[in-house]
Amino acid sequence: MSKYAIGVDFGTESGRALLVDVAGGREVATHVHPYGDGVIDETLPTTGYKLPPDFALQNPMDYIAVFQNAVPAVLEASGVDPADVIGVGIDFTACTMLPTLADGTPLCALDAWKDNPHAWVKLWKHHAAQPEADKINATAAEMGEPWLSRYGNKISSEWFFSKALQILDEAPEVYAAADRLIEGADWVVWQLTGEEKRNACTAGYKAIWSKREGYPGSAFFKALDPRFEDVVDAKMSRDIYAIGDKAGELTEQAAAWTGLLPGTAVAIANVDAHVSVPAATVTEVGRMVIIMGTSNCHMVLGREEKRVPGMCGVVEDGIIPGLFGFEAGQSCVGDHFAWFVENCVPAAYEKEAAAKGLNVHQLLEQKAAALAVGESGLLALDWWNGNRSTLVDVDLTGMLLGATLATKPEEIYRALIEATAYGTRVIVEAFEENGVAVDEIVATGGLPGRNKLLMQIYADVSGREIKVAATEQAGALGSAMFGAVAAGEARGGYDTIFQAAQEMARLQDVTYKPIPENQAVYDKLYAEYVTLYDYFGRGSNDVMKRLKALKAEIRG
Amino acid sequence: MSKYAIGVDFGTESGRALLVDVAGGREVATHVHPYGDGVIDETLPTTGYKLPPDFALQNPMDYIAVFQNAVPAVLEASGVDPADVIGVGIDFTACTMLPTLADGTPLCALDAWKDNPHAWVKLWKHHAAQPEADKINATAAEMGEPWLSRYGNKISSEWFFSKALQILDEAPEVYAAADRLIEGADWVVWQLTGEEKRNACTAGYKAIWSKREGYPGSAFFKALDPRFEDVVDAKMSRDIYAIGDKAGELTEQAAAWTGLLPGTAVAIANVDAHVSVPAATVTEVGRMVIIMGTSNCHMVLGREEKRVPGMCGVVEDGIIPGLFGFEAGQSCVGDHFAWFVENCVPAAYEKEAAAKGLNVHQLLEQKAAALAVGESGLLALDWWNGNRSTLVDVDLTGMLLGATLATKPEEIYRALIEATAYGTRVIVEAFEENGVAVDEIVATGGLPGRNKLLMQIYADVSGREIKVAATEQAGALGSAMFGAVAAGEARGGYDTIFQAAQEMARLQDVTYKPIPENQAVYDKLYAEYVTLYDYFGRGSNDVMKRLKALKAEIRG
Repeated sequence: MSKYAIGVDFGTESGRALLVDVAGGREVATHVHPYGDGVIDETLPTTGYKLPPDFALQNPMDYIAVFQNAVPAVLEASGVDPADVIGVGIDFTACTMLPTLADGTPLCALDAWKDNPHAWVKLWKHHAAQPEADKINATAAEMGEPWLSRYGNKISSEWFFSKALQILDEAPEVYAAADRLIEGADWVVWQLTGEEKRNACTAGYKAIWSKREGYPGSAFFKALDPRFEDVVDAKMSRDIYAIGDKAGELTEQAAAWTGLLPGTAVAIANVDAHVSVPAATVTEVGRMVIIMGTSNCHMVLGREEKRVPGMCGVVEDGIIPGLFGFEAGQSCVGDHFAWFVENCVPAAYEKEAAAKGLNVHQLLEQKAAALAVGESGLLALDWWNGNRSTLVDVDLTGMLLGATLATKPEEIYRALIEATAYGTRVIVEAFEENGVAVDEIVATGGLPGRNKLLMQIYADVSGREIKVAATEQAGALGSAMFGAVAAGEARGGYDTIFQAAQEMARLQDVTYKPIPENQAVYDKLYAEYVTLYDYFGRGSNDVMKRLKALKAEIRG
Repeated sequence: MSKYAIGVDFGTESGRALLVDVAGGREVATHVHPYGDGVIDETLPTTGYKLPPDFALQNPMDYIAVFQNAVPAVLEASGVDPADVIGVGIDFTACTMLPTLADGTPLCALDAWKDNPHAWVKLWKHHAAQPEADKINATAAEMGEPWLSRYGNKISSEWFFSKALQILDEAPEVYAAADRLIEGADWVVWQLTGEEKRNACTAGYKAIWSKREGYPGSAFFKALDPRFEDVVDAKMSRDIYAIGDKAGELTEQAAAWTGLLPGTAVAIANVDAHVSVPAATVTEVGRMVIIMGTSNCHMVLGREEKRVPGMCGVVEDGIIPGLFGFEAGQSCVGDHFAWFVENCVPAAYEKEAAAKGLNVHQLLEQKAAALAVGESGLLALDWWNGNRSTLVDVDLTGMLLGATLATKPEEIYRALIEATAYGTRVIVEAFEENGVAVDEIVATGGLPGRNKLLMQIYADVSGREIKVAATEQAGALGSAMFGAVAAGEARGGYDTIFQAAQEMARLQDVTYKPIPENQAVYDKLYAEYVTLYDYFGRGSNDVMKRLKALKAEIRG
């Protein structure tokens, strides 16, 4: 009798459930449920209050609705008997965090707090905690905090303590009322199992925790704000569970939401990007996984902890138990192309695309693919959404250079793709220069299946063969794999993620190999990119930051 | 009885005739006649031969067709008696030159030569003579030629000797067959009067002639190529006529073309930009005229010859007799916005514009005008078509910086306008730093009437009041004014251009004054612009030129 696992992948706009055959990894049924309130970045649903700039909130009840809708839908579509579903895993965007009562009730679900924006979920892309991030970075540098170099010497405004400190700064009453401050990832697992168990991945990558050193000391938190001294013990937890552990079993209530049986195994929560690594077949060192979607996330495993300047972080057991997981990222990839298509492509192209039965992206790819490397004369810096690695600077902005009156949209489109490929090469080289091998790349996420030109450009620019994960929903598949591991071999699953990856994850037949002629030209263009990267990104000319400061001043 | 003058303005795509009342400058009738062959930049009309890159040719017979069509049309539309038309003036693009026989017959009109592209008119924007311009500049620098600094130390590929030398280099047989090499401006006057008389404006600005020093010496031409040693005496002329002189009178043949009377006075030829200066009321020092259209042309008068680095040129009697005329330019202004609208504005904007009864430029202007100065965070270098002044470098390219995922088309549109305004300020400051006063600006050309936002931005950025010429066809009006001067007071015209300007040229009531708050922010942005201008334009990072060279190499 076949056994199945379900992965639930909580994205930015929706949640996806995927039902997978444990034996061969076949993806049997999937269902996407959009969040009712989506990304809350303009007005608060309760009061219509106009949110300040850079706020991005969510409604946690939308996550519960995913359990209530997407899981029953895959059961129904597949016809699988709930008794044959042995485990559930989840993955989430991160850091996406919320304040709750001691029993897990979100503050924003309470009448007393629902009108306060700080009572809501702060989504990963909530960027309004930059002043707090600046304070954390300055204080850590001043105090010589040893953990700082684990995170490329800079903590992001997106991360846990930046967001937590913003609540304290701007809404101390919400901070006081919050018994718990918790990642959405851990919160949904808590809702499934009834137990608060926090995962090593978000703790490590987003909340400055390490297996060997724990959290920063209370002196550090006190230096940020005396009221923040006990944040870990008062509102978080020092019990952190390794990726691959079992969190617990489905409660009666969660079973009723999902249509699964009470007692079904539930895995410790994971992050969407990190859970994709084993789903892309990677459980060993030397093979980088890039999750290519709205942004790029680069993950590679190592046997030792190395401090790589400008990386997002390194976490022991954070991706695969027993190994160090290194993470880097680019904050603007698919988003970049979407911005371009929405704002910069003329009506004539829309018409041409429609006439050819293509979407605009496909038309642009087709036209851009007809260009020779270097033919456009264009070069861009891919910082439309700041630079995540290696400069770790959200105030950097995009640049395009080389335009003439003959420049066509497809040339700009290709230059933007190339810019993201150069950005990836900067990251790959930073890893290698610091002793973390990157011999091969496996791509996953939404882009590889949609844009062959992009994949070839990445191969040409990086000089590395790029393979592609077979699954198009690596997050949900990885979560299902961890669900099977939570169930364990005794219940028809697997005892380790290594076994699960062996049995459930596959690569596509297609691979992208560097084309030597293209590589030669891209080497020249990359050298130009690096010069500009350093000029604009490392302090020679901080014009981008000054313009952004001026813009902020003018917008008030 | 009223007297009239006709100005004929030869543009890039068409010629315009304007019939003007000499007494008050009233523009009675105008007619535009498009050139049959337009700009010949893809294939030669006779053979279909595919032209090399950067070629831009014209058919001189198209100019004759303007006399044959546009002049009769204004006579008919106005009902004016040809006997009351006292003078004709013409202005032309420059340097636009052609090879002819001794009697003025264009080589391209002869069966023997019509299939050779070098026998045709080389239009001002023919950019294929860059190797020859490079050779002229290098040779002049080496030989310490004193005239070089009169032209900002660089001769353009657009100018007369670059083009003439290209004919010699690439088609020595055409060069040998050409009895004359002549500006289109002088050629059409020759066709009207039967006499070859060359004007000081094109000779001075485009052919390295000066009233005091004449042409470069034959040793210089010999150094370029021994066969080029006698180019001036063999194929040009040392008799140069001041702007404001009379060239002659209409021949019987030209009278038949135009419907005017034989013997009608004809002025010495002029250049479209320069002739606009008196049409914009300016005949004295301290007031800069900017002709704002596809490109910007800046002209200002002075009492002494100053050498201003990076200027296009200074010519005594070249604009107004008795004064030194200084010229500078920006090669990409209206063209810039047109490129943007054609290539970078999404379908949604086209729809919105249509719904509001606006064109896309108007919609963008409306949206861009709603932005505060500095609010977009964007900064551009306006080099989409190279830099004409003060860097004099066609290999520079456009740059846009500061883009984010929230950047909207109107923000880019505004940044492009601002970039051209910064470029103008660089020019104004270069004049002033070198002793040429610019106290006030008078704008003319196609843009001032179409884009109030642009005008205000120029006032705010330059810190100077900007007035606007009343006429919307300054070239043709200026030509008509010179036609009235050619006729002279005795025939019902004027003896000097000063009188003609007094009587026939006017300003609009509207003026644009700098807004102090905007000025303050623009001063900051301008400082950023200048830093990038110097970084990319003066050798710190020649990435633009390297990319352009790579592009040329790849395109073959």
